[in-house]
Amino acid sequence: MTPTGSLSELEKQKMYSEAPEIDTFDNPRPNRDYVNSIKVAEFTSVCPKTGLPDFGTISIDYVADQKCLELKSLKYYFLSYRNRGIFYEAVTNQILDDLVATCQPRFMEVTGEFSARGAISSTIVATYRKEGFEFKP
Amino acid sequence: MTPTGSLSELEKQKMYSEAPEIDTFDNPRPNRDYVNSIKVAEFTSVCPKTGLPDFGTISIDYVADQKCLELKSLKYYFLSYRNRGIFYEAVTNQILDDLVATCQPRFMEVTGEFSARGAISSTIVATYRKEGFEFKP
Amino acid sequence: MTPTGSLSELEKQKMYSEAPEIDTFDNPRPNRDYVNSIKVAEFTSVCPKTGLPDFGTISIDYVADQKCLELKSLKYYFLSYRNRGIFYEAVTNQILDDLVATCQPRFMEVTGEFSARGAISSTIVATYRKEGFEFKP
Amino acid sequence: MTPTGSLSELEKQKMYSEAPEIDTFDNPRPNRDYVNSIKVAEFTSVCPKTGLPDFGTISIDYVADQKCLELKSLKYYFLSYRNRGIFYEAVTNQILDDLVATCQPRFMEVTGEFSARGAISSTIVATYRKEGFEFKP
Amino acid sequence: MTPTGSLSELEKQKMYSEAPEIDTFDNPRPNRDYVNSIKVAEFTSVCPKTGLPDFGTISIDYVADQKCLELKSLKYYFLSYRNRGIFYEAVTNQILDDLVATCQPRFMEVTGEFSARGAISSTIVATYRKEGFEFKP
Amino acid sequence: MTPTGSLSELEKQKMYSEAPEIDTFDNPRPNRDYVNSIKVAEFTSVCPKTGLPDFGTISIDYVADQKCLELKSLKYYFLSYRNRGIFYEAVTNQILDDLVATCQPRFMEVTGEFSARGAISSTIVATYRKEGFEFKP
Amino acid sequence: MTPTGSLSELEKQKMYSEAPEIDTFDNPRPNRDYVNSIKVAEFTSVCPKTGLPDFGTISIDYVADQKCLELKSLKYYFLSYRNRGIFYEAVTNQILDDLVATCQPRFMEVTGEFSARGAISSTIVATYRKEGFEFKP
Amino acid sequence: MTPTGSLSELEKQKMYSEAPEIDTFDNPRPNRDYVNSIKVAEFTSVCPKTGLPDFGTISIDYVADQKCLELKSLKYYFLSYRNRGIFYEAVTNQILDDLVATCQPRFMEVTGEFSARGAISSTIVATYRKEGFEFKP
Amino acid sequence: MTPTGSLSELEKQKMYSEAPEIDTFDNPRPNRDYVNSIKVAEFTSVCPKTGLPDFGTISIDYVADQKCLELKSLKYYFLSYRNRGIFYEAVTNQILDDLVATCQPRFMEVTGEFSARGAISSTIVATYRKEGFEFKP
Amino acid sequence: MTPTGSLSELEKQKMYSEAPEIDTFDNPRPNRDYVNSIKVAEFTSVCPKTGLPDFGTISIDYVADQKCLELKSLKYYFLSYRNRGIFYEAVTNQILDDLVATCQPRFMEVTGEFSARGAISSTIVATYRKEGFEFKP
Repeated sequence: MTPTGSLSELEKQKMYSEAPEIDTFDNPRPNRDYVNSIKVAEFTSVCPKTGLPDFGTISIDYVADQKCLELKSLKYYFLSYRNRGIFYEAVTNQILDDLVATCQPRFMEVTGEFSARGAISSTIVATYRKEGFEFKP
Repeated sequence: MTPTGSLSELEKQKMYSEAPEIDTFDNPRPNRDYVNSIKVAEFTSVCPKTGLPDFGTISIDYVADQKCLELKSLKYYFLSYRNRGIFYEAVTNQILDDLVATCQPRFMEVTGEFSARGAISSTIVATYRKEGFEFKP
Repeated sequence: MTPTGSLSELEKQKMYSEAPEIDTFDNPRPNRDYVNSIKVAEFTSVCPKTGLPDFGTISIDYVADQKCLELKSLKYYFLSYRNRGIFYEAVTNQILDDLVATCQPRFMEVTGEFSARGAISSTIVATYRKEGFEFKP
Repeated sequence: MTPTGSLSELEKQKMYSEAPEIDTFDNPRPNRDYVNSIKVAEFTSVCPKTGLPDFGTISIDYVADQKCLELKSLKYYFLSYRNRGIFYEAVTNQILDDLVATCQPRFMEVTGEFSARGAISSTIVATYRKEGFEFKP
Repeated sequence: MTPTGSLSELEKQKMYSEAPEIDTFDNPRPNRDYVNSIKVAEFTSVCPKTGLPDFGTISIDYVADQKCLELKSLKYYFLSYRNRGIFYEAVTNQILDDLVATCQPRFMEVTGEFSARGAISSTIVATYRKEGFEFKP
Repeated sequence: MTPTGSLSELEKQKMYSEAPEIDTFDNPRPNRDYVNSIKVAEFTSVCPKTGLPDFGTISIDYVADQKCLELKSLKYYFLSYRNRGIFYEAVTNQILDDLVATCQPRFMEVTGEFSARGAISSTIVATYRKEGFEFKP
Repeated sequence: MTPTGSLSELEKQKMYSEAPEIDTFDNPRPNRDYVNSIKVAEFTSVCPKTGLPDFGTISIDYVADQKCLELKSLKYYFLSYRNRGIFYEAVTNQILDDLVATCQPRFMEVTGEFSARGAISSTIVATYRKEGFEFKP
Repeated sequence: MTPTGSLSELEKQKMYSEAPEIDTFDNPRPNRDYVNSIKVAEFTSVCPKTGLPDFGTISIDYVADQKCLELKSLKYYFLSYRNRGIFYEAVTNQILDDLVATCQPRFMEVTGEFSARGAISSTIVATYRKEGFEFKP
Repeated sequence: MTPTGSLSELEKQKMYSEAPEIDTFDNPRPNRDYVNSIKVAEFTSVCPKTGLPDFGTISIDYVADQKCLELKSLKYYFLSYRNRGIFYEAVTNQILDDLVATCQPRFMEVTGEFSARGAISSTIVATYRKEGFEFKP
Repeated sequence: MTPTGSLSELEKQKMYSEAPEIDTFDNPRPNRDYVNSIKVAEFTSVCPKTGLPDFGTISIDYVADQKCLELKSLKYYFLSYRNRGIFYEAVTNQILDDLVATCQPRFMEVTGEFSARGAISSTIVATYRKEGFEFKP
């Protein structure tokens, strides 16, 4: 098993600190308001104050408009936080802003659940709603 | 134990790729709005991009009008996805469209929960409501 | 341990196929709207199509008016389904009709959760509301 | 370890059948509507029909007005049901009436969850609301 | 949905009270000692004393010799207890005797876990070992 | 629902403080060593020091010799502890002694799991083994 | 491992009884209403009546205005209750008052779940809402 | 998102019915007996009698000798069962035979846990031990 | 509710830092080897290095000889660690030494499970066995 | 909240790729064989083949001889794997080798449980035993 296809040190550094573009694909039912929920179980970033790692789960619930988020490129987007220093409140809101900009949904909610530090754990929930949009399933 | 009653290779190929008709039976209480929930635990289809299998659970919650879905034929309907390539968003909406066409319910919601790929899992919830219908149990 | 008090074969056949009358007792607080929930964990009946047994849990939530359901006679009522052939939708609605007729409640909801057959499980929820009744706890 | 401090047989009989007075203390924030939930895990009384014991959990959720319920005296209040014969519906409503009389809350809900007898379990939920009170947290 | 293929009342009575023969098939690896575990989740029989139904789970762990138990015929074997009166100790040992006679295994253990009656539940574990057999995986 | 069949206050007092005789029945397989496990979920007695109630679960695992324990009379045996003052260590050993005397088993283990008091919970496991008996399933 | 960096007895006494100031930092998205939830798993204080310790979990859910709560200083704030005598109702409301004063949020809810004493457990939920604020995610 | 890299129908048919070769790599600690456990959560094959799909989890526990199993090629090996008809006992033993042949371990145990059919579920455990090998961690 | 019976600050300081004597009582069955398990759910002490609190659960399993541990005095013994600085390894072994000295058991095992710090949690298990003692239940 | 005490980019790179020395402290009971278990919940490294991150839990169970592992330095040791490329089998054995070299225990077992990739998860268990050591608690 020769490690062909390995990443160079440089490629790895880039993958773990620079956010790539996220792909989208055409919503197969643009006329229907339906909910798309994505759960990212192994999110990790770095505390900007201590340099120690943070771990958590990011959940995204959205109602697509014309575009849906493509899952593989989304995975690489989340990998880019691995070596970046960012607080819980900032990272959750940043993800919401980035994903709204990418696919311009009718509605999106991002939830960041971060694991305990000193017996204290945190969850941040940030929401975007396109002006005038009301969910009527 | 002779495997009498076995399917031919051809029958199996057909069963695993072509959707059969779904049977219905008369709603025993057409004058009452009541909820009928069906959970299909072992759904599997194929990712159209990679050819690798997807696994999940499909849930259907509906308020019947004149017709109820017959469970055995429904099982064969779901088997027909086994070797078909289809994305999460498309399969969930397709099931909703097919079942609404079959039994013309007052209300139906289809939920597709798909298992994790690369620590990312997805759930799609699509809903149909007959025009003017409001649930008043 | 002599099996005195045993049922004759005839009594057993009757107990397992004919619904007995359900007793009631006076509601101790008829002036208060309060919720009474009863869970019957070991319900079993027979599939009318295959003759094979079905298993499930029946839950009853009601707001009594003048009468409450007596639990022991209710147990015998549920035993009477053991050897009867009846579909999920029919049995849940039938129980609702029988219990509403027995105690004439202000509100009643019957939930039948039936265990999986071929990885497909079903839940039926049927509801009765006395005309004009609105729950204001 | 001499059993000094033991109760006489008479004191025990009294403790297990006569309801003592329940203490209260001044609500530390009478100007704020906040919810106080108390769960009593080891409630037991006696079925008046069979003389056999009943077991359950009693939950109390209330919004205090001027008085809060003191937990130690509440414990003795619940002990007094140990040898009393009383039905599920009656005991849940009686507890609500007694506690409302004791502390005159703005809102109170008492839930009695009783363990299974013959695979049938019961839950009773009774609620009191001071006239005109509406919860606005 | 015509109920073709339905059982007559007579066939049903027979299916629910007379044990059919259990099929076997050739052990695909008779030279290897391996463990085969079967769990039957919806076992029900009748208490011979009260005529009331008993419910439970039967587990079978065995090391096959020349024959394995065929699951579909095993299902019908268990259905035959539905209307038979038999105690917990007797039914567990009877199943062990019947299955040992059917497939003559090197080792078999039958576990009957019966659900609670009056807050008392029972589990019976009976074991057969072919003379001289010692498990050496 | 007239409470006919109710116990008099005297009968209740007796039932809740004096141990009745426990019935047995003939072991249906006296030639086989098999394990019989009984779990009593709602055991309660009284702390002899404080007069306050104790709650717990009693488990009995035994290998019968000629006699098996009859479950209904066993239930009444356990009810007789309801108003008796006895410590955890004593009650577990007393149950073992009483049940060994009743059915003279080849092996018996009694486990008393008592619920927490002041965040401290206790479990006592006491075992009897007939001289020379070794379990060889 | 020399315990350099240890606290003096005096510093420890102070840390465990006097509430320090809680730090805040600028809300990274003051224009968005988003929910920030903090769970403190190992809260302990002292019962003012008995001197015995109380244990619990404190949860804080808030919508920040200009300031967010800094988690490390919050941890020291909670440590200061370790040796203080305070009742459940008082401690939950006191925490709400202190945190509202610190960060002046748009909305805050504090939940104190306290572990069982004598099988009775308590939960207190107190809420603050800035005048005129309504959550519209 | 053009489906470049998609499999042709032919490649998919092959992938889902013919077992590929499994790769191995050099054991990094051949002098130490250590346990390597692999759990394959989404195994599916076809019942040779009915043509209906079977689902299960395959677990492999082994002590490597000179070679370890490479996980990616192992994944493709398991995919090849998707459209093959094979019984539970045969598939578990076949996997054991194939993997032993591939990496010649000191010890290997394969466990196949198959999901319920008609409320009956099955688990098969087959074991290989190199002659003379005894595990001494 | 006047806080009569409150502890003075001095008594509280003493209770939370000095180990009191532990009471014992006569083993009710000194001739039988039986297991007595005690679980202390709310243990807390102080890290000697940081001054921050540690939390955990202490379990004690022992076979008494002539003396059993009295639970109420044991509770006060554990309270005395609340403000003491001591490492995980030391505290678990110290508890074992103290309890062995108190009741001179035939066997005792003390398990300290300490909650996570920085995602790292610890469990220490220390055991005492009287010379020559072998457990033969 | 100025991020004083932040790590430079260089310090962070070093912390996340170079293993620091692990501290030890004197075993407080070197004459007693007792078990010390440490669970590291948020382990992450990099797959050397794909450059993608791996996640898992590392457990260490050991019997100390003269030295115990200090937990804080152990935490930094585990952080050093964050950006290193290493396979499951290698990392588990490497940790065992490093920790044995650090504290020369009588016994040590390292368990690496790695999360699922493509529905396949892995656990590696490697063990060291000082020559002649046998655990006799």
